[in-house]
Amino acid sequence: MDREKLKRIYKKMEERNLPQMIITDPPAIFYLTGKWIHPGERMLALYISTKGKERFFVNRLFPIEEDLGVEIQYFDDTEDSVELLSKVVDKESPLGVDKTWSARFLLRLQELKAASSYVNGSVIVDKVRQIKDKDEQEKLIQSSLLNDAVMAELIPYVVKGHTEKELNAIARELYKKHGASDVSFDPITAYGRGAADPHHETDDTKGKRGDCVLLDIGGVLNNYISDMTRTVFLGEVSERHKEIYQIVRDANLRGIAMAKPGNRMCDVDLACRNYIEEKGFGKYFTHRTGHSAGIEDHEVGDVSSVNEEVIEVGQCFSVEPGIYIPEENIGVRVEDLVLITEDGCMVLNHYPKDLLIVKEDGTTEIAE
Amino acid sequence: MDREKLKRIYKKMEERNLPQMIITDPPAIFYLTGKWIHPGERMLALYISTKGKERFFVNRLFPIEEDLGVEIQYFDDTEDSVELLSKVVDKESPLGVDKTWSARFLLRLQELKAASSYVNGSVIVDKVRQIKDKDEQEKLIQSSLLNDAVMAELIPYVVKGHTEKELNAIARELYKKHGASDVSFDPITAYGRGAADPHHETDDTKGKRGDCVLLDIGGVLNNYISDMTRTVFLGEVSERHKEIYQIVRDANLRGIAMAKPGNRMCDVDLACRNYIEEKGFGKYFTHRTGHSAGIEDHEVGDVSSVNEEVIEVGQCFSVEPGIYIPEENIGVRVEDLVLITEDGCMVLNHYPKDLLIVKEDGTTEIAE
Repeated sequence: MDREKLKRIYKKMEERNLPQMIITDPPAIFYLTGKWIHPGERMLALYISTKGKERFFVNRLFPIEEDLGVEIQYFDDTEDSVELLSKVVDKESPLGVDKTWSARFLLRLQELKAASSYVNGSVIVDKVRQIKDKDEQEKLIQSSLLNDAVMAELIPYVVKGHTEKELNAIARELYKKHGASDVSFDPITAYGRGAADPHHETDDTKGKRGDCVLLDIGGVLNNYISDMTRTVFLGEVSERHKEIYQIVRDANLRGIAMAKPGNRMCDVDLACRNYIEEKGFGKYFTHRTGHSAGIEDHEVGDVSSVNEEVIEVGQCFSVEPGIYIPEENIGVRVEDLVLITEDGCMVLNHYPKDLLIVKEDGTTEIAE
Repeated sequence: MDREKLKRIYKKMEERNLPQMIITDPPAIFYLTGKWIHPGERMLALYISTKGKERFFVNRLFPIEEDLGVEIQYFDDTEDSVELLSKVVDKESPLGVDKTWSARFLLRLQELKAASSYVNGSVIVDKVRQIKDKDEQEKLIQSSLLNDAVMAELIPYVVKGHTEKELNAIARELYKKHGASDVSFDPITAYGRGAADPHHETDDTKGKRGDCVLLDIGGVLNNYISDMTRTVFLGEVSERHKEIYQIVRDANLRGIAMAKPGNRMCDVDLACRNYIEEKGFGKYFTHRTGHSAGIEDHEVGDVSSVNEEVIEVGQCFSVEPGIYIPEENIGVRVEDLVLITEDGCMVLNHYPKDLLIVKEDGTTEIAE
């Protein structure tokens, strides 16, 4: 158990008068114990309380060899794991439960009247996780450096006549080659019309001259993710597409300029959103500006117009405005991860954001 | 909406006096609507009621072009989706919720006092899903035929000096080659000591002469999964390993013999378990005998010693006894999917279960 992180959690629990909680989300358990367990449909729960009672409930199928610094209670498939858990919960106090805990477990715990009430306790762990310690910051920096390298190697492939699916497979291979343990999400490698749909599924489309190519990719290094989007153009770019690209890129820069301690998450969103609206493309920017990132690609803490949380040193989130116009077969997104520092932020991605045309030989040319 | 499946669900809801429920699990939504949506952390909910009120709540990021035969209510990231949902729920009646629904949504719905009580309603959908209709049966048969072909092509690779990870990658390639849209789970390709740990993570180990090789693999074809395990031996097999193999294989056959309508799921489990215990290896068979399968690899309906549900025509589940002895570097599992018919079951896997030695040229030899 990482006692420093746990201390920050206990402090927040006390502030909120929440004496006990169960942490069940595998990434949150990894965050605290350093142990990844993917229990599938089985229960996995780390009970903690400000009184110091701590117990880790683990199915016998996932034996833990290391000493995690917490008492482990094993159970097997024939046992009612929630009932075992209910026995350590203080019936007279409210209990925090993780936001992703399955209803099957929560309803059973409620049926057993295990606690006086149940609240979403994740906000506590999530707020602690939002503030990356030095070790986590270093891992995020390294992970994004790897991402820069993969982007640089991937871009020349867009002119080789590959389909979106083939490009996706190449991206995956590049992460492996560079030592990532996995991709942090299914790489988005979309041409033209596919790029214009933010939730397009990679298909067998090939790119053609003048197409935009949207590459939203990330890998996992030392358990920390990276996530960057670049949009480049095949062979040539129309004046209209150039205009759209520049607006999105400038929106990204405006968002980044607002990413500093004391500003609110919505200030970052609005810096991007208002600029795009001002330029007349507001209705084509259909999603929030970004999300927090760390162990997971999407962590709690949206960069959205309604999130008024104040930004703190150590936060890491994406700034990724976009404009998507299906009827013009164009979708442009420019995304970086930023790490909040004392006086602003460090942009973790270094691959250039100039308007790039990829030429037939795979080299790029700045087109502005 | 598949009205035939829905009719079976409404019938079960009436039997249980549950007038309304929300279905939120993406595979269950696919089962009813034919539409796969992976909402990530966003809410996705199909409200149904025996009074005929039906509404599908979908984030605007996942626009649906088809007519699904149900009213769709879109929302965006700035809206309180659970509050929108709560407005269609009848406050005076109990509400069924899906077993995998996240606590974050359920706790919010409870806070809004949306229903008179909340129950795990999944059992209704799960029981309906357990009984595969003709179309589903055909898809399961085809998916397992593909799996037979992949197993046959994969086995010769085990003697080529590949690591477990390389073998895993080869298995994935073979599914792709045979037209599967995906693997149904991360292929288990384990040698010796890795095979002896049912939750071993694939690593860089290479096989050596005399090792067992455990291959637990499956693919997705037309949205239906396959899942089969075979254990073969590299070059030679010791008498001890031969004995263990034969016990596991015979346990598998005994389990299959019990897989018929009217028997209980636990009868299948106990047929395997009692035989292995009789032979003195009871403590090395550390998991349930199997799980139901269909759209998902693990569906509700365990083949375990405590599941007394009576087997019905149309069910599909795995029969997969195993013996794992870490100190002897051996793990053997033999797994087939079976489909319950009027008078017994159809075994969906055809790759032989003889004790096979894989020779250096990749051919196999029966060693018993």
